Formats: sequence, structure tokens, C-alpha cells
Amino acid sequence: MSLQDALDALSDPVRRAILRELAAAPDWERACGTFDLPVTKATRSHHFAVLRAAGLVEQRDEGSRRLNRLRRPEFDLRFPGLLDLVLREPRVSDVPWPVTDEPE
Amino acid sequence: MSLQDALDALSDPVRRAILRELAAAPDWERACGTFDLPVTKATRSHHFAVLRAAGLVEQRDEGSRRLNRLRRPEFDLRFPGLLDLVLREPRVSDVPWPVTDEPE
Repeated sequence: MSLQDALDALSDPVRRAILRELAAAPDWERACGTFDLPVTKATRSHHFAVLRAAGLVEQRDEGSRRLNRLRRPEFDLRFPGLLDLVLREPRVSDVPWPVTDEPE
Repeated sequence: MSLQDALDALSDPVRRAILRELAAAPDWERACGTFDLPVTKATRSHHFAVLRAAGLVEQRDEGSRRLNRLRRPEFDLRFPGLLDLVLREPRVSDVPWPVTDEPE
């Protein structure tokens, strides 16, 4: 798992939202379909695939559900502090949101 | 400075190479033109602009040279550990490089 893979995986706000939700639940509790994400089903699958490839998420199928585990200890060992930054990040709905794209 | 800006800025290997070179020199010693990068002059300027906008680099002009300072203390305060991960990253030339793109 390279730093490039990790940064690429973490540079998407939807993927960071998935990681924060996963961190708030016990291992293997959350199925992919239970995440409330503003994306299509195909995009959701893509995001989970990226997280899995980057070593951030482990998955196993249970019946028709695909359950997830955040690989926090492994990832922390490889990239100390990085996941903490993501999990501490305020949710978009909690922070003032820029309503203009004018230059500062 | 948002985590998104920081991750976007750090997700490019050329920009990480710039940061590692900057970290190895005293503040305000390195001019933009002194970095040996495998990119055009325009792309180099773009990379420095992204690093500046993300709060990673401070610049000042001295004659015809644009000098740089890595904003390490400020960035460390905002995103503890993140820059360390980048500065510890092995250079591409130091690591085994995959020579196949076949699926694992």
C-alpha cells in the first residue's frame, strides 16, 4: 500500500464520509447499502472498491449483504495519524459552506 | 485551509518531491528554478501555485528569483503528522517499482 494510493483514496469527500460512518460502528456491522450517500449505486460500488484497494476497508459477503470493516489498526501502523485527520474532519453539514466562487 | 485542499495538494508525486527538497534546505534558500523536475516550466509553476494555495509553501520574489519556504510549523499545527508522512516517503528511485499492470 503506497502513500499515493492512500492519498488518492482519501482525497474524495464521499469516501471520507464512508470512513467516518464506518469508524462510528462496530466492525462488520455496516453493509454497503446502509450508507446514505448522494451518489448512484454504481458510484457507491466504485468508492468502496477504491477504499478496499487502498487497504482502508475489508469486506465480506453475508447472504445478499456486503459487510465492511475499517482497517484502522493496519492503516494506522502504516500511515500514523492520517486516518485520524480524516475522522476528525467536520462533516460538510457542520461547517460554513462557501456560497461564492469569486476569488478571495 | 481545508483537509480537502491539503489532500489534493499532496496527492501529486511531483508536488511531494518539491516538498521533500524544500524540507532538506533552509528557509528561503531554494528558488523555484532550482528544482530538477520532469515537467515543463508551466507545469512547474502550476505545482508551486497549488502548494502555495494549500498553505504548504510561502514565496517571495528576490530580483528575478522566486524563493520558497516550507510552512512546516503552520501545516503541522493544522494537520499533525500529515507532512511527516510525505517527507518520510521513499523517493520513487529508492523503491521497487511495479513493472506490470496485470491484476493481482
